[in-house]
Amino acid sequence: MSNNWLLPEFIADVLPAEARKMEELRRLILDKFRIYGYELVMPPMLEYVESLLTGTGQDTDLFTFKLVDQLSGRTMGLRADMTTQVARIDAHLINRATVTRLCYAGSVLHTRPAGLQSTREPFQIGAEIYGHGGLEADAEIQALALASLKAAGISGMSLNLSHAGLLRSLVADDPVAKGNAPALFDLLETKDMPGLDELTARFHPLTRRALMALPDLYGDINILKEAKKVLPSNAGITLALNDLEYLARVADCERVTIDLADLNGYHYHSGMMFAAFVPGLPNALARGGRYDHVGEAFGRSRPATGFSMDLRELSRLLPPAKKRPAIHAPWSDNVLLCEKIRQLRNAGEVVICDLPGSRAGYDEFICDRELVADGDNWILKTVDKE
Amino acid sequence: MSNNWLLPEFIADVLPAEARKMEELRRLILDKFRIYGYELVMPPMLEYVESLLTGTGQDTDLFTFKLVDQLSGRTMGLRADMTTQVARIDAHLINRATVTRLCYAGSVLHTRPAGLQSTREPFQIGAEIYGHGGLEADAEIQALALASLKAAGISGMSLNLSHAGLLRSLVADDPVAKGNAPALFDLLETKDMPGLDELTARFHPLTRRALMALPDLYGDINILKEAKKVLPSNAGITLALNDLEYLARVADCERVTIDLADLNGYHYHSGMMFAAFVPGLPNALARGGRYDHVGEAFGRSRPATGFSMDLRELSRLLPPAKKRPAIHAPWSDNVLLCEKIRQLRNAGEVVICDLPGSRAGYDEFICDRELVADGDNWILKTVDKE
Repeated sequence: MSNNWLLPEFIADVLPAEARKMEELRRLILDKFRIYGYELVMPPMLEYVESLLTGTGQDTDLFTFKLVDQLSGRTMGLRADMTTQVARIDAHLINRATVTRLCYAGSVLHTRPAGLQSTREPFQIGAEIYGHGGLEADAEIQALALASLKAAGISGMSLNLSHAGLLRSLVADDPVAKGNAPALFDLLETKDMPGLDELTARFHPLTRRALMALPDLYGDINILKEAKKVLPSNAGITLALNDLEYLARVADCERVTIDLADLNGYHYHSGMMFAAFVPGLPNALARGGRYDHVGEAFGRSRPATGFSMDLRELSRLLPPAKKRPAIHAPWSDNVLLCEKIRQLRNAGEVVICDLPGSRAGYDEFICDRELVADGDNWILKTVDKE
Repeated sequence: MSNNWLLPEFIADVLPAEARKMEELRRLILDKFRIYGYELVMPPMLEYVESLLTGTGQDTDLFTFKLVDQLSGRTMGLRADMTTQVARIDAHLINRATVTRLCYAGSVLHTRPAGLQSTREPFQIGAEIYGHGGLEADAEIQALALASLKAAGISGMSLNLSHAGLLRSLVADDPVAKGNAPALFDLLETKDMPGLDELTARFHPLTRRALMALPDLYGDINILKEAKKVLPSNAGITLALNDLEYLARVADCERVTIDLADLNGYHYHSGMMFAAFVPGLPNALARGGRYDHVGEAFGRSRPATGFSMDLRELSRLLPPAKKRPAIHAPWSDNVLLCEKIRQLRNAGEVVICDLPGSRAGYDEFICDRELVADGDNWILKTVDKE
């Protein structure tokens, strides 16, 4: 029985000081979303797998815990990502013809950690725009992501931009390349140049040249000029490059990089993709992009663009929350003391009472004052040092 | 595919206006807990069943979804109640000798709804005191529960008090009665008087008289006088009745009732138990009590008393959240407009922008002002009616 308190691997409790920091971050970011007009929704922790996994691909399927519903006998999944849930809400419950801005915050669960440093219970917080296919919505989402991270206290960020439309447009006019898209994807993802060289030998020379050039098309905004020289100039490619140029120009961020071979999120996204990084941390703090096809499976395809981040990871990067000043009170059922405590709490003060024979312990607070008896009255006295 | 958006029974999305109301309630109640010195913890959504179900009894086991952990092959449960998790945190992670006040808020999941009006995903919010066995801790928890409900806007509450120690003390000195405790419990719970009459025939006459009287010992504080006449006066019974008298006297509530045969929570609790009701609603809004044995299975038995409530149920009782006043802005990449919007948002105003060709829709907000061009400037104009 002595091991009863051990938690599963990559699952953890959040203790007082850290939990308070996360709660404060949660409020700060949700309030930021609200100032931009994003409305809050709360999708459920579990759903039937058919709706939960719609349009998400195999990765999400493998990360999703499955359960049998005792009421229906059907398989339910625990949400591993809230994005499709929010798309379902936009399509079927809110069901507006106008632009809809939604935001959300909650735990998601993964069967396996995404990496050795990852948790199996990320706290996902994010924002989405439905009903507008234009780049202006992508720019707003990108700006909101950066503004949220800045408001949280993150500095020295770099923003990496990529575009899911680029590879699709590149192979669109070359049937041989299009037929080899999955193999092509794997080679580009691992930047396997010899393999890429071999596979593309049978492609149209222009496609081949473009694909071989992709892994090197990484850098600041100037690589877009280079890309325009090397890549074919079909409509899809031109659009993707112009999108990236616009988004790089409007980004309010210390450093912007563009990686035309970055395929992270490619299966899910349909247009621009972005990731925000801080120096020294390999994982992105926030990821976002356009995913216009998600509502299809719900019978209502709406343009969609959004971003999300893991509040647990973000919180770890930030300094500890400031301890809140509090007032220490002895235990007593003295009527005057009780009334004084009531007044102080009504005025927003934290008052922590001992209990008879037991002192109160705490991490979140720092008692800089205490209530002491002064004749018949109770007065506040400064505590020099705890 | 057209049914992909249907949710499992007793599982629901929370849409914008309601989600905002819940978020505001969540903040208000957590802030109330904080003012009393309660520290926030966040236990995980899932744990090994051994720790999750420790000391909770069969009811919780049946309500708990089970999963196989792919990493360890062991059985995990989705939390159906957060109380034991918080007790585990007090015992093993915070591990103080002093009084510890903790609070928590989060979704819990049930395999089956508790009733026809219930959800399978309650949002549990609550507070606990560890390390103090005295009635003062119970009184503080009771006061905090009532103050939280009042702060949320609930009025006309009635508080019902009962005591888990009473039945235990009643049968303690009667071996025959003690041996029949489970049957006795079932009969008292269903107030089956003929069955009770039959079962108690073999008990000591004093035990029998007391047990037969219990179901009628329901009413205001005066029934305690009646109880003292009818019930044997052993130490446990006297203590329980005195506890109830004290708690009834200090309760800051419109109506206090005492029900000596109320066994709701009996298996889990060790001392006083309370439930707060509003007229017309059969389920309690908040339930609490003392449960000193919970830490035992974690190897560290600490006195404990606490309460919790379902924020979804509480939210349903309250009027809709007030729509937040907002400013409507046209879409434009005009530099002056963008700067004006930035300033307004920095000042805490909600500014909702249209996107080119698409108007923005919303439920949470009411746009009472709009940004309009005035020569080269952008000014705020009152909107008479949306």
